[in-house]
Formats: sequence, C-alpha cells, structure tokens
Amino acid sequence: MEIDNVIQSAVFVSDKAELLDRIQKKGSLRIKVGFDPTQPDLHLGHTVLMQKMRQLQDMGHHIILLIGDFTARIGDPTGRNILRPSLTKEQVDSAAKTYQEQAFKVLDRDKTEVRFNSEWLDKLTAQKLVELTSKYTVSRLLERNDFAARFAANKPISMHEFLYPLFQGFDSVMLDADLEMGGSDQLFNLMVGRDLMTRYSKPAQSIVTFPLLEGTNAKLDGDGKVVGEKMSKSLGNHIAITASPREMFQQLMLLDDGVIWRFMSLLSNLTIVEQKDLQEKLSSGEASIVQIKEQFAQEIVTRFHSATLANEVLVERRAISQGSFPSDAPQVQLTGSNMIGKVLFLANLASSGAEGSRLVKGGAVTLNGAQEKNDKLVLSTGIFEVRVGNKNKKFARITIV
Amino acid sequence: MEIDNVIQSAVFVSDKAELLDRIQKKGSLRIKVGFDPTQPDLHLGHTVLMQKMRQLQDMGHHIILLIGDFTARIGDPTGRNILRPSLTKEQVDSAAKTYQEQAFKVLDRDKTEVRFNSEWLDKLTAQKLVELTSKYTVSRLLERNDFAARFAANKPISMHEFLYPLFQGFDSVMLDADLEMGGSDQLFNLMVGRDLMTRYSKPAQSIVTFPLLEGTNAKLDGDGKVVGEKMSKSLGNHIAITASPREMFQQLMLLDDGVIWRFMSLLSNLTIVEQKDLQEKLSSGEASIVQIKEQFAQEIVTRFHSATLANEVLVERRAISQGSFPSDAPQVQLTGSNMIGKVLFLANLASSGAEGSRLVKGGAVTLNGAQEKNDKLVLSTGIFEVRVGNKNKKFARITIV
Repeated sequence: MEIDNVIQSAVFVSDKAELLDRIQKKGSLRIKVGFDPTQPDLHLGHTVLMQKMRQLQDMGHHIILLIGDFTARIGDPTGRNILRPSLTKEQVDSAAKTYQEQAFKVLDRDKTEVRFNSEWLDKLTAQKLVELTSKYTVSRLLERNDFAARFAANKPISMHEFLYPLFQGFDSVMLDADLEMGGSDQLFNLMVGRDLMTRYSKPAQSIVTFPLLEGTNAKLDGDGKVVGEKMSKSLGNHIAITASPREMFQQLMLLDDGVIWRFMSLLSNLTIVEQKDLQEKLSSGEASIVQIKEQFAQEIVTRFHSATLANEVLVERRAISQGSFPSDAPQVQLTGSNMIGKVLFLANLASSGAEGSRLVKGGAVTLNGAQEKNDKLVLSTGIFEVRVGNKNKKFARITIV
Repeated sequence: MEIDNVIQSAVFVSDKAELLDRIQKKGSLRIKVGFDPTQPDLHLGHTVLMQKMRQLQDMGHHIILLIGDFTARIGDPTGRNILRPSLTKEQVDSAAKTYQEQAFKVLDRDKTEVRFNSEWLDKLTAQKLVELTSKYTVSRLLERNDFAARFAANKPISMHEFLYPLFQGFDSVMLDADLEMGGSDQLFNLMVGRDLMTRYSKPAQSIVTFPLLEGTNAKLDGDGKVVGEKMSKSLGNHIAITASPREMFQQLMLLDDGVIWRFMSLLSNLTIVEQKDLQEKLSSGEASIVQIKEQFAQEIVTRFHSATLANEVLVERRAISQGSFPSDAPQVQLTGSNMIGKVLFLANLASSGAEGSRLVKGGAVTLNGAQEKNDKLVLSTGIFEVRVGNKNKKFARITIV
C-alpha cells in the first residue's frame, strides 16, 4: 500500500514533500501516536487513526503508541478551584491495559512499541520544566482555538493547561519522532511538538491529522457533504468495538446510504482506486447500495471479530430479509389477552398502544410470518413471533400466558 | 517604634486592619522579603526596604531574607531564542554572600533568618509544579502591567516568565509568611503569593510595598511633587552604600533642597513626628536647610560607616566652607606653562579651555585661597591649589613642572 492511500483522508499534512523525502531517506519512520488513558472504551471513531497506524505498520514503519499516563494522573481540573487528580496510578495502568487490549484488535502487537510518558516526565525537575517553558511563548499558546475563545470570553484558563501542549511536544523530543499523527482536534498540540523539536535542535516531526468520524446519525446535506455530530459514547451515536457481530453489522447497515462512503474512506482498507471502483459499480447498476454496505460491514466485523462470524451474520440477515425469524430475538412473556396494538406496546415494539395500532393498520407488522393489518385483533394465550418495521426492524418472540 | 512609622511611606498595604489584628494576635510576625542575587552592589535605593526591615526587627518581628538562588540560576532569557542560565551556582552563592555583607550594614545579623528558595524549588517535581500552576489562571498573570503591555504590543512573553510569579508565591507558601514586603514594582508578584497561600489552605500573607527611591538628580515639580528617574547604577544617579564617608555625605548634601524630605521619609529612622518637627523648624527659621541636610547626611553616613567618620566629614566640610583646602583633593601634574583656562581644562576642572576662561571671568575660581578673575593669567612651574564652583565644588592640587 502506498502512503497516498494512508493519507488520502487526512485533514492536514505538514509538508507532504518533506514527508515523502523522509520516507525515501529513512525507509522506516518512527511514528508517534499519543492517547489519553482516561477513556479506554473504544468506538469506531477511535479506530480511524489506528487503522492508519496499522496500514503504516504493514508498510514497514515503526509505530510508537504513547500512553499519556503522567498527564492522566495529574488530571485536568479546568475551571475548578481544587486540583483533583482524575486518576490514580492503578486506575491509569488499568485503563491503559484495557486500551491496549482493544487497540491490538487493529494494531500489530508485535510491531508496536508501547511507551508511557511518565518515563521522562516523572523525572523532569522544576528547573528542566522551566527550561521547557522558556522555549514557547504565551501568545502562541493563546492562538489555540479553544484557548483564544475562552480568553476572549473571559473564561478562566488555568496556567497548567498551558503546560499540556508543552508536555506533549516534549514527548516528541524524547521519542525522536519522525511523524506524529492525531485527530484533527490535536493539530495545535502536534505543531507545538514540531516547533519544540527545532528548539531542542532536533529534526522537526512531520504531522498528519485525520478527521473525527461522525456518528451513526450522520446525513448528507444538500451539497452532498456529511453533516452530524462526532461519534461519541455520551451522544449515543457510537458503534462500540466491543459490540456483538450482529449489533455492529446492523449499525453499519443502518448508516445513511450517502454516509457509507465517508465511513469507508476513514475505516476501510480499500485503496482509493478500489473505493472509486465501487462507486462506479453503484452508478452503473452493477452493484446495489445494500451489497456495498454489506461488503463494508463484513470488512469491519471481520476486523473486530472474525471472517467466520461476519459471514454468519450476513447469511442470517439475508434469511431474515426473506422472512425467517431471527433465533436470538428477545423473548417477552405477557399475562392475559390484549389487543395487538397494546401487545406491541407491552413488548417494547411500540411507544404506546395507539402507536401499536397505527403500525398494524399501516402494514408494518408481521405476525408468525404473515402481515397482520387488523388492529382490532386480540391476542390470547400462545406464542407469537412478531416483526415490526421494514428497514430498521424490531423482533420479539412473545409468550402470552 | 510603632508600625505606623514603618508603613508611613508605604505605597500599598493590603488591609491595614488585618495587619494590625495579626500583630495583636501573634506579637511577632514572620516577615518575608525576597531579593534577586544577580545584582549584589547596593545603593541607597535598595536600603529603603532594608531600613523598614531593621525597624521591624527592632520591634521584635522575625525577618526572613529570602535569596532567590533557584530563579537566578535558571536565568531570564526573555525574548531570546536560547536558554542561557544567567549565573552558575558559584556565581549566585558569591553574589548572595556579597549581598548579605552589605545588607547586614542595615539588618541585625543575629535576628535575620536567611533562606534560599532552591531548598524547596530544586526538589519540586514536574507533577508538583503542574499542581502549582493549576492554582492560577493565565488571565490573572496577563493582568500584570508589563505582561499586558507586551501582549498588547505583540511582543513575546516566554511561558517560563509566567512561572516566576508563581515560584515567588510558592516561596511564601513554604515560609508561612505573615507579611511580605517589597518595592512597589513587586506588588503583582506579592499578590500572587497572597492568592496562592489561600489556594494552599494557608492564611494569606499581608502585603506592604514601598516606593522606589529617586536618584540624586531628582527635583520638585511645580506642585511640590518629587520627579526624577529611580536611583540606578546604570543611570549614574545613585549613592553606593560602599561610597566613602566623604563621597556619601557630599552626595546627600547636593540633593535638591525640596527632595531631602522624600529621602528622609524613606531612609531615616526619625519618626513621623520628628520629621514634622524639623519641617516646622525650617519654616520658623529655627533651623536652616543646610543644618537639616547635615543632620540627615550624618545619620546615613553613621549607618554605613560610623558616627566618628560622619563627624569627621562634617567638621572638614565646615572648615572647607570657611576657605580651607581639602586634604584629599586630587593631585594633578602638568608640564609647561598655560593660560589658567587651559590649565583648568587639563586638570579636568572644566570641559574645555574656553569654559575654563569663562569660569575664571565669572568669579567661580579660587587660586591658592584667593578669587582669581583674570582669564589671561599664565600659570608656570609651581604648585597651585584650585577650587572651582560654589555649591558643587571641585578641587585640585595642580603641580606644573
């Protein structure tokens, strides 16, 4: 794979000519990617960068996974009055371990150098730290977007927040990084590292940043641009990498048809050319959007689970789309007879009895394999396999006693 | 002596009621005064604060002389690209020693606790330093006048400059200071110390700042206000505390008549009442300004030399004002005959031969005890005792061979 395929979706590359020249001269680059061990639960958004790292590993480059345990232990009491170490050493170590377990689903464990920045930052004396701070100006730190906005709005910026970019930069100095990669929100910090290396009389690292992946609810706007909030656990629009093969496959299939190309460009191992081929096949009618989504979902589920499991899910999905009832549908037990709308409500398939009735009348409900449009139907003792909806299907195996 | 006499000339007192309450409750206060050991050569301007410290010692308070050796060793490479430690450990120690020798001409050596901030700052880990910086905001640091001006003018402020006020404040935390005193230019740093103590859950130090003494060329403006640049060695308007008794006495006598009260309020041990008495005696004609200046000069020369030497100088001055030639006048040897104006120039008593002639014609020159107004006079082989000027007299014993 060529470097162009890795950086195709980059937001920013600090001097591509410099980067290519470096690769030509050194062959294998030392590539630093830092992560914050306070949030070890990964979702697909976190793996954009990891996939790029894996591609570079496969090209023979040396990946350094830098765990910011020093800064995590100090914590970030922004705007608070009392310094509150966010995590103890044990908590950080545990989070770092979880993180690595998940990261090595993408990265090649044997080719990854894992480092902790406490290795040098714990030993940094006040005198050395003053030396570090003397190499950077207040104005340049205030140029950072969020700092500038807070300063303009008279919102407090604690002095120690200014130290974090310098610490991150110092990590690059200590690691002799040739290239640092990060999310596009990290650009400023990466640039500080580039500057600091020069100040420490070292070759300045190249920088590549990647977009932050949007969430599962992203859409295309009128101009064909992907819009939507970033994937985030707290927003509930994420796909956890620990999701089951079925869940993960399903979430990927439910993505907006237009958005699938964005996810593909950030997550897939397909080259630029291969992705273009797929787009042409869709245009010419040679492939359907469902087939393309299935291929992509299979690639991702294979990555985090296995090809076998990915294939099983695909086979099951196709059977279901031809009417078969899923073996793992939720089991619901109810007591007493009720009209079908109320039953849907009680089984969490509708938000109210009235909505249940509407769904039945609208033809969205399949009862034991056959469409059921009579909303006056009363269900009594028995077992009922119920499917609701067409695209975003819900299933339940309801037992009434 | 009452505290009012000490703080009479203060520029700023952080809550006088709080300070008085502290004195009442604790009796003896822990008073911190920091100094920068990079400039050990003291002049009278530096002793304003020391005199206040001595007065407080005599009142029974505990004076801590804090030597900022840590910061001095780190140096202040403001606006420079390369960190340049301004002083080595040996240089700092040597400067600190010289400083103490001079300071103990004013302070009571046995009642002074000398501390070095390297004691705790050398041991400060990066983690503890980050904790320290977390307790202060960027905005508050930018409020400091010189920082604000530089920021507004887009002049670089190196990040480490922001650390110095925090270090100074941390010194107060470590010393449990009840009161910190300093020059008026130190107010901001002292306030940082006060704030930080609260953040470290300690009682906040009181703060008293004193004016910076003007130089020997200060004058009164139309409103009776003292104007002139601060006393400074580099401006040449200073009175060194190592000046000889005669030099020091002479420089004090040459101060502007109106300015003498300013110097007295900052340097004298006279109480407010005693100083007012002197002003009344001058108004009523009971004392002349010369007598008042002599009394003040004697007090200061006694402080830095001895009462005996101060008295000897006074006696000699009075003899000279009645015509006697000073025994220590500079000896000048010249070759060949010249007109008197040229001789004055060659003996450094005039800036040119022409100015020498003017001085003679104007009656400003005394030759061997008699006024000489003939500028055509030629001086040949012999010894000539020459005095030039009236108030700011110059003398030379000229030998022409």
